Amino acid sequence: MCTDAAALVEAIRSLAVRGAPLLGIAGAYGVALAAARGFDVAEAARALEGARPTAVNLAVGVRRAESAYHAELARTGDPTAGAVAALAAARALHQEDAEASARMAAHGLALLDELLPGGGHRILTHCNTGALVSGGEGTAFAVALATHRAGRLRRLWVDETRPLLQGARLTAYEAARSGMAYSLLTDNAAGSLFAAGEVDAVLIGADRIAADGSVANKVGSYPLAVLARYHHVPFIVVAPLTTVDLDTPDGASIEVEQRPGFEVTEVMAPQVPVAGPGGGVPVAPLGTQAYNPAFDVTPPELVTAIVTEEGAASPVTAESLAELCAKSRRVTAT
Amino acid sequence: MCTDAAALVEAIRSLAVRGAPLLGIAGAYGVALAAARGFDVAEAARALEGARPTAVNLAVGVRRAESAYHAELARTGDPTAGAVAALAAARALHQEDAEASARMAAHGLALLDELLPGGGHRILTHCNTGALVSGGEGTAFAVALATHRAGRLRRLWVDETRPLLQGARLTAYEAARSGMAYSLLTDNAAGSLFAAGEVDAVLIGADRIAADGSVANKVGSYPLAVLARYHHVPFIVVAPLTTVDLDTPDGASIEVEQRPGFEVTEVMAPQVPVAGPGGGVPVAPLGTQAYNPAFDVTPPELVTAIVTEEGAASPVTAESLAELCAKSRRVTAT
Repeated sequence: MCTDAAALVEAIRSLAVRGAPLLGIAGAYGVALAAARGFDVAEAARALEGARPTAVNLAVGVRRAESAYHAELARTGDPTAGAVAALAAARALHQEDAEASARMAAHGLALLDELLPGGGHRILTHCNTGALVSGGEGTAFAVALATHRAGRLRRLWVDETRPLLQGARLTAYEAARSGMAYSLLTDNAAGSLFAAGEVDAVLIGADRIAADGSVANKVGSYPLAVLARYHHVPFIVVAPLTTVDLDTPDGASIEVEQRPGFEVTEVMAPQVPVAGPGGGVPVAPLGTQAYNPAFDVTPPELVTAIVTEEGAASPVTAESLAELCAKSRRVTAT
Repeated sequence: MCTDAAALVEAIRSLAVRGAPLLGIAGAYGVALAAARGFDVAEAARALEGARPTAVNLAVGVRRAESAYHAELARTGDPTAGAVAALAAARALHQEDAEASARMAAHGLALLDELLPGGGHRILTHCNTGALVSGGEGTAFAVALATHRAGRLRRLWVDETRPLLQGARLTAYEAARSGMAYSLLTDNAAGSLFAAGEVDAVLIGADRIAADGSVANKVGSYPLAVLARYHHVPFIVVAPLTTVDLDTPDGASIEVEQRPGFEVTEVMAPQVPVAGPGGGVPVAPLGTQAYNPAFDVTPPELVTAIVTEEGAASPVTAESLAELCAKSRRVTAT
């Protein structure tokens, strides 16, 4: 339980709280919490924003609650009223995220039906994008779930997603809980499925989408995009429009978080008492140096479609994305 | 320690003994052991051959020692003389493998110098192909080592190689021991290196090469081949000619071993006392079904060159491979 913003920053850094949409919601609630407890709101907001550099939703959520706080404070001069406004902003974001999730699922299902008219979809997914990262049922996973409910999911292939095994730990759990036919696989085995023609579509989430349609997502997404292209399989990104950052012009401008090497040299297993220097079970010789980017960037030319709550951008271009963003702003403005 | 062929079969199945060239040597010594201890040699040979279906070197080694045993037995009528002949055959194979390793390293180094005239190579490798799998210094790793000794290795990128983490456990150890500049990475992170232009060549071993040049190797090799092609990076297979199986016409004819799901749902960590049903540390919910092919198959059109002890086949075609095999047979026959 996080009783102040500093604890929440630590929870975000250690990935106890993770997943792009959830980070936005958590960031907004974190600002509301700081305001309610009388901490310096601007300071808490900057600390929260900086906890994970790649996921833009975090900064969006933080700034929304912060703006609500400052606007109300300026209007009333009352910090308590500001805190109430920040909490209301966080709750609104939470609610909007749940609604966005349902709308992405509907748009994604329609797109899959259009791209794969035969039904009986075999969908490959990476990392974790379900209810555990969202106010609703998630992003890519919500689409797979809609496909499952419509009776058209033949199998969900779940990449284990090293180093932190979000697929094995979380997506396998969500798939089992939902009654889907699913199989877990090492990230290495995805290639064999593509080669055997056993993948009809790839569905992933996103941590930040640049204005040109470049997609930053969990490391291992880009290799799937290249495999999908080589095998003529649709590669579909599902993300709310809060993930699109028009201030980031292109993929090269996205800051990719580099995480500690021990996530690679050790496997995290909280149930195990013995542990290496990083707190996990060592799987490499002591002192091994590791390269550990948390995300990778997929260029727009490898993305078949970006599915948002306002519909799909396909082909993915600066124009098609900007159009969806404008639609969203019009909706938000009314 | 294996004191009979059955124990060796188990050691091969559990991967205590692994790596294509070493499997051949171990298989030959296993037959010699069975002969020396008075077991049924043909029965032991069949059990050893069947312990790992994909690595052709195993069957080649087993049959060579078995033939030596039977030939000597037929000539002398003396099983002890047969056992001595089987042991001599195993020792000869062991010695030849060490020599083949040195010759592959020289041919591989020459090929890299030709393909990458600038020097300062950054080489990506997968699984484990060094002295731990060979009578000599290995296959792909031996080439990397030759590059290192020639002062032309800038970095060895070591894929951890899930599920069994041979890269993390073994290759990282061999690289450190050799004083190479190296970094360990999750298999997922290889894509980021390609995208950043930080891979100059991929070097891998092989478990079986079909007559058409299709290469079966550790799962995760095929995705690297696709990434290498997409980024115009040479993808080089290093293997002794015993790995080439002219009786296997093409990739589709290669039997790919499917291994137990617990290798995916658990991480093997012998030093940890608590364990899941498969003996490792559980990383997925209990009951999770996993897809776990041990190998994948890379078609010849994605392989830049196959480096053998008789030189490199490049481009990789049935003809260029057959030519090297014929050369080898002429050499063996003299």
